[in-house]
Amino acid sequence: MAKGKVLLVLYEGGHHAKQESKLLGALENELGIRKFIEDNGYELVATHDKDPEPDSVVDKELEDAEIVITTPFFPAYITGTRIAEAKKLKMCITAGVGSDHVDLNAANARKITVTEVTGSNVVSVAEHVLMTMLVLVRNFVPAHEQAITGKWDIAGIAKQEYDLEDKIVSTVGAGRIGYRVLERLVAFNPKKLYYYDYQALPEAAIKKLNDLSLILNGRGDIVEKVDSLEEMVSVSDIVTINCPLHEKSKGLFNKELISKMKKGAYLVNTARGAICIEDDVADAVNSGHLAGYGGDVWYPQPAPHSHPWRHMKNPYGGGNAMTPHVSGTSLDAQARYAQGVKNILESYFTGKHDYRPQDVIVIDGDYATKAYGERKK
Amino acid sequence: MAKGKVLLVLYEGGHHAKQESKLLGALENELGIRKFIEDNGYELVATHDKDPEPDSVVDKELEDAEIVITTPFFPAYITGTRIAEAKKLKMCITAGVGSDHVDLNAANARKITVTEVTGSNVVSVAEHVLMTMLVLVRNFVPAHEQAITGKWDIAGIAKQEYDLEDKIVSTVGAGRIGYRVLERLVAFNPKKLYYYDYQALPEAAIKKLNDLSLILNGRGDIVEKVDSLEEMVSVSDIVTINCPLHEKSKGLFNKELISKMKKGAYLVNTARGAICIEDDVADAVNSGHLAGYGGDVWYPQPAPHSHPWRHMKNPYGGGNAMTPHVSGTSLDAQARYAQGVKNILESYFTGKHDYRPQDVIVIDGDYATKAYGERKK
Repeated sequence: MAKGKVLLVLYEGGHHAKQESKLLGALENELGIRKFIEDNGYELVATHDKDPEPDSVVDKELEDAEIVITTPFFPAYITGTRIAEAKKLKMCITAGVGSDHVDLNAANARKITVTEVTGSNVVSVAEHVLMTMLVLVRNFVPAHEQAITGKWDIAGIAKQEYDLEDKIVSTVGAGRIGYRVLERLVAFNPKKLYYYDYQALPEAAIKKLNDLSLILNGRGDIVEKVDSLEEMVSVSDIVTINCPLHEKSKGLFNKELISKMKKGAYLVNTARGAICIEDDVADAVNSGHLAGYGGDVWYPQPAPHSHPWRHMKNPYGGGNAMTPHVSGTSLDAQARYAQGVKNILESYFTGKHDYRPQDVIVIDGDYATKAYGERKK
Repeated sequence: MAKGKVLLVLYEGGHHAKQESKLLGALENELGIRKFIEDNGYELVATHDKDPEPDSVVDKELEDAEIVITTPFFPAYITGTRIAEAKKLKMCITAGVGSDHVDLNAANARKITVTEVTGSNVVSVAEHVLMTMLVLVRNFVPAHEQAITGKWDIAGIAKQEYDLEDKIVSTVGAGRIGYRVLERLVAFNPKKLYYYDYQALPEAAIKKLNDLSLILNGRGDIVEKVDSLEEMVSVSDIVTINCPLHEKSKGLFNKELISKMKKGAYLVNTARGAICIEDDVADAVNSGHLAGYGGDVWYPQPAPHSHPWRHMKNPYGGGNAMTPHVSGTSLDAQARYAQGVKNILESYFTGKHDYRPQDVIVIDGDYATKAYGERKK
């Protein structure tokens, strides 16, 4: 008899998983960890059937699972009610980064450990942010549409095409992803880089950006911390969101805050969909107050067909750079988070519980990181 | 009576030009230089009617024009036969960068000066290169298509989604654009940056890239010159073309050279369409030998509906990141090249002919730059 049950929730790969064996994050390939789990005496149940609560396979299997593993791309929401039913649950592992799909307060109340694979896809997401900024500012989507539909109307593209150079770019959050975004932006010679965060970047991190800017742009004062989010968005040409979803960031970009953004600015969000009020964003793009919005996070996921971010466009027909939640699941990232999950499991199975500190979100009934809000009891 | 005639050939802006007054590169806004030209005693004729030779407005008006101004985005091809008919022609100005639409040998034979606005859109094009690389490597186009058509098939995107990090990226040409591409790539932590060019980068330029890499990636040996183009493309994950179109680069990327590229590599060309053999590129993408091709240059321009680059796709349905020729005509770039054309005209009208050396392509019957090939007589 197995020592316990591991429940693994992944998106279906279907024929894609057959075509590409490196697609470890697909259900069929099970992160490449079935043998490892079984060799450790545990049972592995893998499924994609996570909705609706409480009638899904996840609900049924979670009841006697000891460990649940899920991804941000196709999250099984580990709600308070699900946790209440999961009497044996001791560990939630996020295969990737961002554990907001777990009710962290409920996990704390039950002393369930929540871990993620910090760093496994920070580069992938930072690259997606840069790509999305360029796609929006350079008006790629309508331009590509012309290319494939046989048109050649350059003025129709150029009238809303800019350079990233000399623009003011700001990030909400300058953690592992936000900072990497700043690093990649310096070479594009922005007018200024601002960041808003609950804590200041270390001196060395600021110096690094300024040193780079001195070499690249002849200016050693590229980056600045801003204390007022409202002021920051009011002067920015591009705002990017790189903070976790928590009680304070939920719905942060609502009608009021968006109305303070510059007319014609761009908003890029690869953090979490629920940080923005979906209708407020769509209204701002459709009206032209925002020239564009892009990113790959939605709420819920998968996004319904009717989600307004699927259909919004600015008055010139561009300004939508959405993708499904794929930024952190490149094949390169999958290799990293599959390995990271295996490392966490190994630490658990051996009873050492010597997790990398940065991987631990909640443990022993309390928050292990400030990143999810300063809500320590 | 006017001292002479200036013929200006620009793409039509239509209602776009009315909507956006910064669209200086559109026919209706005439680079903002009509008054300046007329104040200098010259007549200005502006048209978009450039094809077909010899029945277009361009053919008719060129016959007694002294100066012709055209753009790379919507080029009036100043062919040998057109030059032969243009008895009064003394100056061809490219509003932008790249004067290959002029028969330079024919211009030399008639001692016609050819100038362009060097630097006016090098940043814009370099940004387009980075965008196109990210769009291809991260598989943006099919991902966005899912977003707007209501789908959520993450595995179908992820199976061909990679990070730019840790890839080998190479440029054919490390001039004003190619070097800026290298500068922007360093922060993405590539495995290696290679360049192939007829001349080595200055020591200081190499040191700059390596210094940046030392700060960013902890490795001070990021960039290397390669003597064999075949060897370079055979080891590269991404190849970008940033050289002018001239006799030696025309058709350079043909079936043979492409066959030496790594299977699954990406090719990005924002230089000139004719540097690549169109059917050879399309075959390589359609067969999957290349994972993708992107860029914004075609031959001829506008590209016909049947151009294979409009329709090519890799076997997974992605790999096409084409746009019409818009990279160098962002509104920021338009302001720069409109001003640059005015500066060249001023130098001409005053009789000083004190052009910026870097703007002069051919003058007094000879090539002023090696960039168009070492074909000096």
